[in-house]
Amino acid sequence: MIDSPKYAVFGAGSWATAIVKMLCENLDEVGWYMRSVYTKEHILKEQHNPNYLSSVEFHLDQLKLSNDINEIASWADVLIIVIPSAFVHSELEKLNVDISKKIIVSAVKGIMPESGKLVGEHFHDIYNVPFENIAVIAGPCHAEEVALERLSYLTISCADAKKAQAIANALSSDYIKTKISDDIIGTEYAVMLKNIYAIAAGIAHGLGYGDNFQSVLMSNAIREMKRFIKKMHKMKRNINNSAYLGDLLVTGYSTFSRNRMFGNMIGKGYTVKSAQMEMNMVAEGYYATKSAHELNKKNKKKTRLPIVNAVYEILYENKNPKKVFKKLVEQLD
Amino acid sequence: MIDSPKYAVFGAGSWATAIVKMLCENLDEVGWYMRSVYTKEHILKEQHNPNYLSSVEFHLDQLKLSNDINEIASWADVLIIVIPSAFVHSELEKLNVDISKKIIVSAVKGIMPESGKLVGEHFHDIYNVPFENIAVIAGPCHAEEVALERLSYLTISCADAKKAQAIANALSSDYIKTKISDDIIGTEYAVMLKNIYAIAAGIAHGLGYGDNFQSVLMSNAIREMKRFIKKMHKMKRNINNSAYLGDLLVTGYSTFSRNRMFGNMIGKGYTVKSAQMEMNMVAEGYYATKSAHELNKKNKKKTRLPIVNAVYEILYENKNPKKVFKKLVEQLD
Repeated sequence: MIDSPKYAVFGAGSWATAIVKMLCENLDEVGWYMRSVYTKEHILKEQHNPNYLSSVEFHLDQLKLSNDINEIASWADVLIIVIPSAFVHSELEKLNVDISKKIIVSAVKGIMPESGKLVGEHFHDIYNVPFENIAVIAGPCHAEEVALERLSYLTISCADAKKAQAIANALSSDYIKTKISDDIIGTEYAVMLKNIYAIAAGIAHGLGYGDNFQSVLMSNAIREMKRFIKKMHKMKRNINNSAYLGDLLVTGYSTFSRNRMFGNMIGKGYTVKSAQMEMNMVAEGYYATKSAHELNKKNKKKTRLPIVNAVYEILYENKNPKKVFKKLVEQLD
Repeated sequence: MIDSPKYAVFGAGSWATAIVKMLCENLDEVGWYMRSVYTKEHILKEQHNPNYLSSVEFHLDQLKLSNDINEIASWADVLIIVIPSAFVHSELEKLNVDISKKIIVSAVKGIMPESGKLVGEHFHDIYNVPFENIAVIAGPCHAEEVALERLSYLTISCADAKKAQAIANALSSDYIKTKISDDIIGTEYAVMLKNIYAIAAGIAHGLGYGDNFQSVLMSNAIREMKRFIKKMHKMKRNINNSAYLGDLLVTGYSTFSRNRMFGNMIGKGYTVKSAQMEMNMVAEGYYATKSAHELNKKNKKKTRLPIVNAVYEILYENKNPKKVFKKLVEQLD
């Protein structure tokens, strides 16, 4: 990795804003691409994001703001992608600079819905980025707590440990502790799966299941996650590390998680469409459910995924949540 | 195990009351010993426990109530002990019948504070109960949700699988699912340790740490629990099963847990004594912390227990919680 690489964040949601804040603790200049002209103008005038983490004040002399994705992409050496997975493909269609020599860091909490590919795979296949230049930022981390500077831990995964460490250093501060990992595929799948389990937790809550069941659900979810990831990419990993179990818990227990909220509405009887309209967005776990279900179906060595399958039946096969969960609870222990 | 054995519960707290309720779903008669004459009279008059789970109505013709421990102990074949660990020793001093042929089931959520022994070991050593006649009921299970008949899962551990299954059957119902295990030592230690981690979660909350940190704490706690139990009793176990991880989560995330509440007060600056006076009780985890710390100290093969040690330093060495946690967070990942 070159000395003092330039970092840029792509996206302007809460997680993107939190990552810009982390970088600003360490770097003189941080690139920040966002689609919305209004958001950019607001930040220039008021020094904060109008829509997310608006309590976080930025110093404008540290920010290189732009609505032009190509300007930021060509300026930066390290591109941190923090766009909802459903929009990654269309956002990047505007890209006309060569990014094959850049370091790509995915902070996308999902999987490419069009292809079922991991974000890293997408950049490798479409933009010729070598795998050793692809990294992932995993939690457990609510952006809202970064805004409050509450102690949080991140795991940076990259096949190249030096690059992982450099990115970790750029994100570390008094309130952000980082560790590195070489399990880039495992952490990407963990990030994807936890959103499905958060939907399951929400459905359970919506159906009236309590805290006892929630703990059994999470205990089964982490075992299911372990089985799934092992089938996709076998290597030595401790599934109870923060990047897997911690991330599952922070999402599965959060009443603010949009995935859990979406599940809760489904459990309470909303249709998928009405829940999505009510929330004015599609929760990442919605796409992840389909991808995980299909990946497992395609895999010759299928694994037992009772929770993923239950959520799939509810979201994609229109089955009654109450009945599906009646069947699911018999498969848990 | 004899046909249609008689079951009795010893204790009248919320967990004891919940277990009596579970048994009443299956059995014609359930023995119930309690110390308090007032509680017994109240149940006889009003059909519910005046102090705990008072929404649960009992049928008096199903209950064999007594304030005489020897009457119930000689009547029953299966003795379910649900007394706080600090009172087990003194409660049982009144016992003058031979219980060496009985089946002893511990639902005590702790360790004998006088000796540091597991409850099972205590019954084996003092009352000559053979180990194959000793069982443990583990959660994850808030008694309050049993009262509401919310779906809950229990694990019954016993070296003798047939006995474990018989006890499991007596407790199972529409809303109680059970599984059996032969890891009696491991589940007893898990029950003890989770209370320490709940205190740690409470201290963290009291000090102002947030949800991100809580998930990291739980992720480290389950790994610490695995190391500890492995050192005490090595066998093949999946630490992510409900009896271990599930039980840790239901306690560590519960705002009703008395251990977490106790920790929260310590984190907010109460002394141990004032927190105990305020709560009018001593949280199980208080004793467990000392026992776990000493067990590890005595063990030739010491293991790394940063969370247990931090709680020990705060509770028993009067160290400043803020400073201890500043050091602790550097040891977590």
